[in-house]
Amino acid sequence: MKFKAIVVDIDGTITCEKRELHLKAVEKIRSLNVPVVLATGNILCYARTASKLIGLSGAVIAENGGAVTVRYDVNGTFEETIEECEKAFDFLSEHFELTKLDPFYRKTEIALRRNFDLGRARVLLKEQPFDVELIDTKYAVHIKSRKINKGTGLIKLAGLMDLKPEEFVAVGDSANDVEMLEAAGFGIAVANGDEEIKTVADYVTEATFGAGAVEAFEFLESRGWI
Amino acid sequence: MKFKAIVVDIDGTITCEKRELHLKAVEKIRSLNVPVVLATGNILCYARTASKLIGLSGAVIAENGGAVTVRYDVNGTFEETIEECEKAFDFLSEHFELTKLDPFYRKTEIALRRNFDLGRARVLLKEQPFDVELIDTKYAVHIKSRKINKGTGLIKLAGLMDLKPEEFVAVGDSANDVEMLEAAGFGIAVANGDEEIKTVADYVTEATFGAGAVEAFEFLESRGWI
Repeated sequence: MKFKAIVVDIDGTITCEKRELHLKAVEKIRSLNVPVVLATGNILCYARTASKLIGLSGAVIAENGGAVTVRYDVNGTFEETIEECEKAFDFLSEHFELTKLDPFYRKTEIALRRNFDLGRARVLLKEQPFDVELIDTKYAVHIKSRKINKGTGLIKLAGLMDLKPEEFVAVGDSANDVEMLEAAGFGIAVANGDEEIKTVADYVTEATFGAGAVEAFEFLESRGWI
Repeated sequence: MKFKAIVVDIDGTITCEKRELHLKAVEKIRSLNVPVVLATGNILCYARTASKLIGLSGAVIAENGGAVTVRYDVNGTFEETIEECEKAFDFLSEHFELTKLDPFYRKTEIALRRNFDLGRARVLLKEQPFDVELIDTKYAVHIKSRKINKGTGLIKLAGLMDLKPEEFVAVGDSANDVEMLEAAGFGIAVANGDEEIKTVADYVTEATFGAGAVEAFEFLESRGWI
């Protein structure tokens, strides 16, 4: 096997536990011979800044696949999914006191503070016609369209890079990385990952957080796959 | 002398030449015993992301002093200066083909691509009534209010932190850092800095870029000032 690019989640995967960059992971990323794309549930500006500060080209997937950019000098493209999320938000607001995170910056989905009963919210939403789902990235609960995820984001971005999604290795730690690992040619979960992501991963690292990402990249190099 | 906090520019000061984070500078910042505030001409979201990824508390000065936040969980405060900048932009647009950078995110000033004759633009603006100035941060040309700069930003943020600006050490590399170094109790310029910033600095490092920042922090520690 030979892969042409890597797509990697940010928080929990190339960071330490408190979300600061894992410096050895950054150093390792800079040494790789293939392009590295960042994929996050966070907003586009966060993803682009992270890419710049890590020393990458600006190719990113943000908002759980809703926003994508291929380079710094290219504007982002956004899916038209926020309206459905707003309807679900209005409905849920009748039952919970919800706090939006980054509402000014977030264009395709809604992120909420994790201070309400997610299980009950899911049950309530099930009876409703909105084509959305609630996902918990451990940093926020996201109301997002069922039509988009980091997997659809990867398919879109791969096309813009003239690559196929299966030419990517994907590395992640959370339930919102599952579709990305499925779309990629090979999927790696870091040891601190959810059970869901470990189930779909082709390889699970022994090390956690950024040290897990370093292990993942070294594994790929040792096999000659990148 | 004893200082209680440090305010440091990002691009060119704690980065390498291509704007990726200088990892030794990040490591050194994480080891310091005083709070570290980031100050940038870039947008608030960039500053907050950088603060998070470096592992700081979210206290930042952005947009050359126009935007300030004291912590992650607090919204930014913005100066009401964009209108005057827009008038100057409209005037300059009659003479040059200008490209705004980040217009959606930038709330208090205007950043332009550096592809026009800055000298001529300054001459043209001089005859006009707008209370703005053009500054070149090497990454963009900014149309900004003469009333705000990183120095006024520091005064504002210091107040929010219950500190005095002179209790800060400021570290920077560019003309837009001058007022910040003047407002702080002690000013350090990295070796790659402009002549303007070196003139106002109390200390100029021998090393450039992030290595210069490491030298600056080590200098302060060796004197027992932080």
